[in-house]
Amino acid sequence: MAGRRIDSMLVTDLTHVRYLSGFSGSNGAVLLSKDLSARIATDGRYTTQIAEEVPDIECLKARDVGVELLREVTGPRRVGFEASHVTVAHLDRLTDACGEDVQLVPVTGLIEDLRLTKDQLELERLTGVAELASQALAQVLDAGELAVGRTERQVAADLEYRMRMLGAERVSFDTIVASGPNSAKPHHGAGDRVIEAGDLVTIDFGAHDRGFNSDCTRTYIMGHTTEFTEEIYTIVHRAQAAGVEAAIPGTPLRDIDAVCRDIITEAGYGDYFVHSTGHGIGLDVHEPPMASANGSGELREGMTLTIEPGIYVPGRGGVRIEDTLIITAGAPEVITRLPKDLQVI
Amino acid sequence: MAGRRIDSMLVTDLTHVRYLSGFSGSNGAVLLSKDLSARIATDGRYTTQIAEEVPDIECLKARDVGVELLREVTGPRRVGFEASHVTVAHLDRLTDACGEDVQLVPVTGLIEDLRLTKDQLELERLTGVAELASQALAQVLDAGELAVGRTERQVAADLEYRMRMLGAERVSFDTIVASGPNSAKPHHGAGDRVIEAGDLVTIDFGAHDRGFNSDCTRTYIMGHTTEFTEEIYTIVHRAQAAGVEAAIPGTPLRDIDAVCRDIITEAGYGDYFVHSTGHGIGLDVHEPPMASANGSGELREGMTLTIEPGIYVPGRGGVRIEDTLIITAGAPEVITRLPKDLQVI
Repeated sequence: MAGRRIDSMLVTDLTHVRYLSGFSGSNGAVLLSKDLSARIATDGRYTTQIAEEVPDIECLKARDVGVELLREVTGPRRVGFEASHVTVAHLDRLTDACGEDVQLVPVTGLIEDLRLTKDQLELERLTGVAELASQALAQVLDAGELAVGRTERQVAADLEYRMRMLGAERVSFDTIVASGPNSAKPHHGAGDRVIEAGDLVTIDFGAHDRGFNSDCTRTYIMGHTTEFTEEIYTIVHRAQAAGVEAAIPGTPLRDIDAVCRDIITEAGYGDYFVHSTGHGIGLDVHEPPMASANGSGELREGMTLTIEPGIYVPGRGGVRIEDTLIITAGAPEVITRLPKDLQVI
Repeated sequence: MAGRRIDSMLVTDLTHVRYLSGFSGSNGAVLLSKDLSARIATDGRYTTQIAEEVPDIECLKARDVGVELLREVTGPRRVGFEASHVTVAHLDRLTDACGEDVQLVPVTGLIEDLRLTKDQLELERLTGVAELASQALAQVLDAGELAVGRTERQVAADLEYRMRMLGAERVSFDTIVASGPNSAKPHHGAGDRVIEAGDLVTIDFGAHDRGFNSDCTRTYIMGHTTEFTEEIYTIVHRAQAAGVEAAIPGTPLRDIDAVCRDIITEAGYGDYFVHSTGHGIGLDVHEPPMASANGSGELREGMTLTIEPGIYVPGRGGVRIEDTLIITAGAPEVITRLPKDLQVI
């Protein structure tokens, strides 16, 4: 922390609080000092929980956790705060809590940088939750729960139920089951539309367990293919495979995006690939690194990355195929192990 | 807006964007001007969705939505921003986007105040989603899914599945199924503990539909009562009923809290009621008004409020009973209609 010229760091982003301390409640903050001593604060609802999750750090009981931790700081001190998390109104309260010789310093990216590459425990958790989610979708397909005549919502509910029963604490994000014309909306949810023969059905889903998330997308074709559905499936499939192959240490992130985008563009669908190619995943579903046309930096061993190109033709339908990868010294490890060949159901 | 001396208001809180425009995507901002003209922005993922949800407002396609909306503002202008939502780092980007004669002004509470009392459509949505959730828990009980020998997680998964199949888009928050000693943790989730005879089981759950949330808690006793479980149930039941009765227009919010807290304190369990009595609910699960010991203001017709006193004795168990009310001219309307008498299951 010396390089940033702060004496202490106030961490208020709850994901970062969890990353540093293991505390998973909905109100908490950590104050880290240069001498590596730490204080943590939460309110009365979490007295029992924090004693179990964080037995080794002394806990301050407070409602406005950041403010109360700062009140205990005696100066002269420079205290960093998370400028990408603290709101303008929150900063006012923090400033009021500071003694005269305590100065607040905006800091960005400190904990984010630590989270960029994952350690062994994190990779095990990520692999475990991805396997759990994959198993749930396999069960849905085996049980015939993805079927013509059912609604998107019913399929989503079945998939979520299976993830929960397999041990997920919750879904990582709203499950997408986008059928027919809805598959042309990359962020469609799961509504009351009844799935029809000929539909493309895109299922984008994730499970959450002990802080970590999974993210995977598959697109299926119901009943029979058409020239259109088979064409766009085949292009996306090819683009996705090329993206996975390119994901090795040292590859610039924008090149990962370009590999996928070029294939789709050359096939004439470039205007219909309306989002970036991928993102890191960990305690957040979307976190750095970002594989986009203007992404910066390059892949490193221990990072995670999704590869999820898509084609979305409004009114007609769309295809997205997404895997989550762990970047290793060699070929990436694909932790979302579900078949990707065109499947007619 | 004249009173706040601003010419335009940049709204970036996604809940407020939805409140004002109906747009439900995960990236968006609205710029409202004094002449009531409005601009909205979102990125390419939501092109189709925003055209459906917000047909009448011209949409700017942008990734950094607030920044790009501000770039279009020509001065001299004072533009308000949401100080309780915009982070310090975000404000830096917004400031950089402003022309020389455009000034940013921190504003708090503007949209929050509008949301404090609900209109007819909002109350219908809230009532509908509360009824859906109540029906789901009634189904769980009817089906015998809350039973000795099952895990907390299984019960939670069943309840969530039933809410989804009844039409909920998602849960409002992580379902709590807290059994035995876990019931002493107000914010326990739902884990692998197997429910035993003699347990208290607290179920705190909510459904989300078209932006609106429900929130309800019931505590059941498994197999047989003990002196302890019956005693604390009876006290909380009495406190909760008194809180509901007090919830009429004009009652100060701190008095609502006091009504419940006094009963629990007089019964000797004051130290074990470790949270506030209630909160408003709407587009957020927790929103003003707040019924707490230091709450300000008073109840008004059209507000919503939960009444949820509890007793939590570490290691032994806890009870919480929670209803959601709509404040009316007369007695409040309880929209979480499930029995509250002590039930041994």
